[in-house]
Amino acid sequence: MRDSRRRGPDLRVDKERLWKSLMSLAQVGAYTDQATGLRGVNRLALTDADAQGRRLVSRWFEEAGLEVRVDQIGNVIGRRAGVEDLAPLMSGSHIDSVPTGGAFDGALGVLGALEVVRSFNDAGVETRRPIEIGFFTDEEGARFGTDMLGSGVLAGRISLAEALAKGDRDGVRVADELARIGFAGSSPATLEQAPAAFIELHVEQGPLLMAAGADLGVVTGVQAIAWRELVITGKSAHAGTTPMSLRRDAMLAASRVVTFAHDMATSGRYGEHMRATVGRVDLYPNRVNIVPSRALLTVDLRNPDDLVLRAAEGALEAYVSELASELGVVITSRVTARTGAAHFDGGLQRLLARHMDECGYRHQRVLSGAGHDAQEFASRCPTAMIFVPSMYDGISHNPREYSTIEACEAGVRVLARAMLELAC
Amino acid sequence: MRDSRRRGPDLRVDKERLWKSLMSLAQVGAYTDQATGLRGVNRLALTDADAQGRRLVSRWFEEAGLEVRVDQIGNVIGRRAGVEDLAPLMSGSHIDSVPTGGAFDGALGVLGALEVVRSFNDAGVETRRPIEIGFFTDEEGARFGTDMLGSGVLAGRISLAEALAKGDRDGVRVADELARIGFAGSSPATLEQAPAAFIELHVEQGPLLMAAGADLGVVTGVQAIAWRELVITGKSAHAGTTPMSLRRDAMLAASRVVTFAHDMATSGRYGEHMRATVGRVDLYPNRVNIVPSRALLTVDLRNPDDLVLRAAEGALEAYVSELASELGVVITSRVTARTGAAHFDGGLQRLLARHMDECGYRHQRVLSGAGHDAQEFASRCPTAMIFVPSMYDGISHNPREYSTIEACEAGVRVLARAMLELAC
Repeated sequence: MRDSRRRGPDLRVDKERLWKSLMSLAQVGAYTDQATGLRGVNRLALTDADAQGRRLVSRWFEEAGLEVRVDQIGNVIGRRAGVEDLAPLMSGSHIDSVPTGGAFDGALGVLGALEVVRSFNDAGVETRRPIEIGFFTDEEGARFGTDMLGSGVLAGRISLAEALAKGDRDGVRVADELARIGFAGSSPATLEQAPAAFIELHVEQGPLLMAAGADLGVVTGVQAIAWRELVITGKSAHAGTTPMSLRRDAMLAASRVVTFAHDMATSGRYGEHMRATVGRVDLYPNRVNIVPSRALLTVDLRNPDDLVLRAAEGALEAYVSELASELGVVITSRVTARTGAAHFDGGLQRLLARHMDECGYRHQRVLSGAGHDAQEFASRCPTAMIFVPSMYDGISHNPREYSTIEACEAGVRVLARAMLELAC
Repeated sequence: MRDSRRRGPDLRVDKERLWKSLMSLAQVGAYTDQATGLRGVNRLALTDADAQGRRLVSRWFEEAGLEVRVDQIGNVIGRRAGVEDLAPLMSGSHIDSVPTGGAFDGALGVLGALEVVRSFNDAGVETRRPIEIGFFTDEEGARFGTDMLGSGVLAGRISLAEALAKGDRDGVRVADELARIGFAGSSPATLEQAPAAFIELHVEQGPLLMAAGADLGVVTGVQAIAWRELVITGKSAHAGTTPMSLRRDAMLAASRVVTFAHDMATSGRYGEHMRATVGRVDLYPNRVNIVPSRALLTVDLRNPDDLVLRAAEGALEAYVSELASELGVVITSRVTARTGAAHFDGGLQRLLARHMDECGYRHQRVLSGAGHDAQEFASRCPTAMIFVPSMYDGISHNPREYSTIEACEAGVRVLARAMLELAC
C-alpha cells in the first residue's frame, strides 16, 4: 500500500474551493446569536435546515462524480469506484449541528473529504480501492438524545429499530422526520463489508493544539462518555407560606447535583481529563412564586478511561441517593447514552504523522474530549483522526468556533495524502 | 356602626351553595396533575380559562342583584346599593391561579363574599352603606411577573399605563389580552372614594392554623416581598473538550445562587419567617452536551420586616457580585416586584376576633406569608383578613390544596357578621 509509484501526480488541495464550500454550508441554518450578535449555525438533525444542508452536500457529491446512496437511518454516502472491487477506504463526518453551532464542527470532515475527491478528480487519480465519503445522521445527539446515532447504527452498536423509534423532546420520532425530509433511504444501514480503513478530519474543539503551537493533531482516541437524565420529583408549594423546613424543592436538589458534578470533575480524583456538565434543566411549573415540584436535568460525564468513568458515575449515583433522602425528594436516573473509550489504530497514527512530517507540519498526539463518528468505526476497521486547531481557547458549539483557512488546508492536505496512499 | 339593632334577622350562610360555587368555578381551567393524577386548576390571568371564570362569576354577581362594572385594568366589581350614599364596604379577592393551583386560593374570598351578599338577599337585609365585592386582575403575578397587579393599580401603587404595558414571557401585553378576552373595562381603575373598610377572606396556604388547632385566623399583616430576576451570561462551550477551568458555566452560577438563597433563609440570621425561593430557571441553549451560556432565574424573598428583607436582598446582591467574578460570568439583577410589609387595622382585627368568639370559633393571630389583595387596600382604608385553615401542611399552589366545607362556612359566617355590622 505504500508504493509511492501508485500515487500518480502530486495532489493540489484547493483551499479557496474548500473554504467556499464551508462558508456556503454555514449559510444553511444560519442565525444571529443573542448574546454576541455573531452569525452561528443551527442545523439540528432532521430539521428543515438539516434537510437543506443534506440536499446541498448531496448535490456537491454528485457533481464530484460520486454515486450517492442514502441508508435506512439517513446516512448519506458517496462512492468513487476503484479499479478493483476491494473493501472501500472511508472518510466522513456529520453536517448536523447543535442549536448554537459554528461553521466547522463536522462540516470540515465532510467537505474536507469532498475536497480530497475533487483533488483526485482534478489530478486524474484512479485508486485501486473504492473511496466512500459520507455524512452520518445526528452525530450531535442534540435533538434525539443519543449522539453518533447514524454511525452507531452503521457500526452495529445501535439497532436500526431503536434508532428509528427515538423521539425528540416534543415526541417527534426519527423515522417520521426522515420520511418528512425525504431522507428515509433504502440502502441497508450496515457495514456489510468492513471498510479497509476510516479516517476522519475534524476541528479539535479544544485548546490543546493552539497552546502547544502545533499545526495538526494525530488523535489517539476518544474519551468514554456517559449521559444521564435525572428526574427529581418534590412537591410544589407556595413560596411565601411554606416554611423552609417543610419544602421538598426539586430545584434545590438539582442545584446540589450541579455543584456536586462540578466539584467531582475538578477534584483531581478522576484525573485531569474528567469532565462533567449539566447542560439542560427543565423545571416544572417554573414560576416565580412556586417551589418547583419537578426538575429534569442531564449530566454529561467524560473520561479517557472506561473504568474511571464508571467510578465517577458510581459516585454521582451514590450522591444522588443520599441527596434524595436528605431533601425528601424522589430522584430517578436513566442512562441515555454511553460510548466506551475508543483507541485508534497505531499504524494509521504513524502513517498520518509521517505525512505531516513530510509536509513540514508540527504535530502532536491528542486525546479527543468530544465524541466523533470515527469512534464507531474503530470497532469495525482500522480508524484514525486528524485534528485541525481551533481558535479562541478551542471554543466550539458556539458561533465563535473558528479555524483558519491555512489550518483547514493543512488538515485536508494530509487527509488527501493518507487516503491516496491507503487507496492505491 | 356597632348598633346590633340594625343587623336585621340572623343570617344563614348556605354552606352547600358556597361549596357548589367553589366546585363549579374549579372546573374552569381544570387539568390533571402530571405528578399526582389529581385534578388541579390552571387559570393563569387573562387566558381563555380566566376569561371563562370571569364570565361565570360576573353572571353570578348579576344573578345576586349586583351592579357589575369592569375597570380599565380588568378588575370586576359588583355593587349592592346602600340606603345611604356612603363610602362602600368592600370585600373580594382574585380568581386567577398559578398554573398548578387548587380550588380555594382566591376563589374562596370572591365566592365567600358572594355568599355573604346572597345571605343578605335571602334575609332581606338592607345596609346603610353600599357593599362592593370584587375580583382583581392577576393577583398571582404568575403570568405577567408582578403580583397584585389589579389591586395594585386600584390602590394607586402601580400606574395604569405601566400595568397595561406589562408582557408575559412570550411578550403578550396585558392591554392586548384584556381587549382579547373582553375585559378591558371603561370604569376608572382608581378608588375615587376610599372604601369604609376592606375585609378579605382567604385560605391560609400555610400550616400554622392546623398545627394550633384553630378554626380561623385573624391576620395581623402580610410579609414584605421582593422578586428579582437574575440573568447570568457565561459562554457556551463543548461539554467534552472544554477543560473545567476554562468554563464560564451559567448553570453552575445559577446553582450557587439557589443554594445561597436557601442557606440564607435557613440560617436564622433573618429570623424564623425568612423565605427564599428560586421557582423559575430558563437555560440557554439547554442541551445535554453544551455548557450553558445563559440562565434566567427568579428569586422570591419574603420577610415580615421591611428592613430585614432589605438586608437579605443586600446579602444576595453581594454574593451574586462575588460569584460573577469567581466564575467569570456576568450577572444582571432586576427587581420585578416589591411590596412592603402590610399591617392590618387593629380595630378590625378585634372586631373579627369578637365575632369568632361569639360564634364559638377558636382563633389565632397569624402573619401572612403570601401576598394578598388586601395589602394594597391597607394603604387606603382600614383593612383586615380572615384566614381559613388549609389541610395537608397548608399546601397551596398545588392541586392538593384543600379546606373543609365546615372551615369555609366558618370563615364566611364571620365575614357576613362583620360586614353586616360594618355596613349597617
